[in-house]
Amino acid sequence: VDTLKRVLPTAGSPIGVFDSGVGGLTVHRALRRALPKEKLLYLGDTARVPYGNKSKATVTRYSLEIGRFLESKGIKLLVVACNSASALALPALKRGLSVPVVGVIGPAVRAARSASRSGRIGVIGTEATLKSGAYQKALAHGSEPVRVRAAACPLFVPLVEEGWWEGAVPEGAARKYLGPMKSAGIDSLILGCTHYPLLKPLLKKVLGPRVNLIDCGTETARETASVLTEHGLARRSGKGSETFYVTDAAERFSRSARRFLRRQVLSARVVRFGA
Amino acid sequence: VDTLKRVLPTAGSPIGVFDSGVGGLTVHRALRRALPKEKLLYLGDTARVPYGNKSKATVTRYSLEIGRFLESKGIKLLVVACNSASALALPALKRGLSVPVVGVIGPAVRAARSASRSGRIGVIGTEATLKSGAYQKALAHGSEPVRVRAAACPLFVPLVEEGWWEGAVPEGAARKYLGPMKSAGIDSLILGCTHYPLLKPLLKKVLGPRVNLIDCGTETARETASVLTEHGLARRSGKGSETFYVTDAAERFSRSARRFLRRQVLSARVVRFGA
Repeated sequence: VDTLKRVLPTAGSPIGVFDSGVGGLTVHRALRRALPKEKLLYLGDTARVPYGNKSKATVTRYSLEIGRFLESKGIKLLVVACNSASALALPALKRGLSVPVVGVIGPAVRAARSASRSGRIGVIGTEATLKSGAYQKALAHGSEPVRVRAAACPLFVPLVEEGWWEGAVPEGAARKYLGPMKSAGIDSLILGCTHYPLLKPLLKKVLGPRVNLIDCGTETARETASVLTEHGLARRSGKGSETFYVTDAAERFSRSARRFLRRQVLSARVVRFGA
Repeated sequence: VDTLKRVLPTAGSPIGVFDSGVGGLTVHRALRRALPKEKLLYLGDTARVPYGNKSKATVTRYSLEIGRFLESKGIKLLVVACNSASALALPALKRGLSVPVVGVIGPAVRAARSASRSGRIGVIGTEATLKSGAYQKALAHGSEPVRVRAAACPLFVPLVEEGWWEGAVPEGAARKYLGPMKSAGIDSLILGCTHYPLLKPLLKKVLGPRVNLIDCGTETARETASVLTEHGLARRSGKGSETFYVTDAAERFSRSARRFLRRQVLSARVVRFGA
């Protein structure tokens, strides 16, 4: 009965993408590149950023609220472009929503396992993401055993937001954070935070060309494409589009967005949720 | 009539101190040092940190709520150990509370004006604090004209919280942020963020020994002492004490507190406010 009342998504329906702020735009960019015909609805929860220092119950409540809002806009699939929400709220989102839900952790972990020859895999992220153990747990599930090195890199987000993507300061920070992993001989590194892809050239320089850098955005876009195909929901023709929603400070978002997307962003619409 | 119902504060009553998180502990430390006989009640609003990206209305609401809570605990004076709250909510706090209220901006500005010989004064802080214009406005009011150079230093807070107070990374960041001020010939620099006093040795190294570093905490403690004396509320005898309240994550607070106070901290009590 319920399905009769709802307008069922079609291939022409948009994809919903959300993050606690601007970081998820690296995932948005990867989706845009991999799926140029799709319509994307991006929501940045800028009023309640960051999620990293909030409890599982709170992050789950916020995520469900956003998921339902995007469902009300007729999305056919939800991409959780936020490591904290993927780590804490993915099962609740899958239960609570009727559209398929894709998080950033699973795709990155599968890519790292398949890229690694030595089984020595590094993962970097915020303190909250690594403390949740979500990457470590997902990496432990698999046929081949792997050895995981995790390092929280709290300075990387502010460095990215400051626009300091190369030079002595970020390089010094990267050497400090990644030195032990490099010595431990990792051959693949998961960038477990949506801000980090902007530091790729720097990380490549610090780790050397033989370490695979696994970018959540690229892998999540790949997984999104295959889930859409599987459900017969991939859009085969037409021009892609994008709409941006934020929960506060739309202007500030548009300014940062330019840095993350490397192009002009149309103004974002403000949606209000409870606190 | 109202004063009859309230228990009037005496010299034996405690001083209330609040900040959005742990940063205000540098002010707490300065108060402890300047006023060893006083009882201090510190509240860190860890559930709603940071204040820097919130609107004036929201920061005012939070500040009043905390001020009233501390008044209900019988404080004789309130120290606003938070630059954002001092910039946005001081007039509302002064109107809304019955105890004297001391913010961090006024004392720092007066100290800078009296320390500067050339009238070239620098001020550093978070983007939100500098954008509020509170320091710039306060520096403009005075008998002697001054030339102000302001620089937002978004990486300093995460550097302090990461414990990177010296070495190539923070030094590189400090040179980048302060280079233009140094060239402009400032002779005094206001550290307009409660985290920054922990970077003093580094800033001294970068700016040279002839630039006065104005520490909000020290100046605010000095002002607090004179306001107490003025109101006949200074505690003349007895042993000082301290009580810590937080609005979330008490353990995490106690851990960080050790870094800010350079000593063990008794466990913090959790108080809940609305969102």
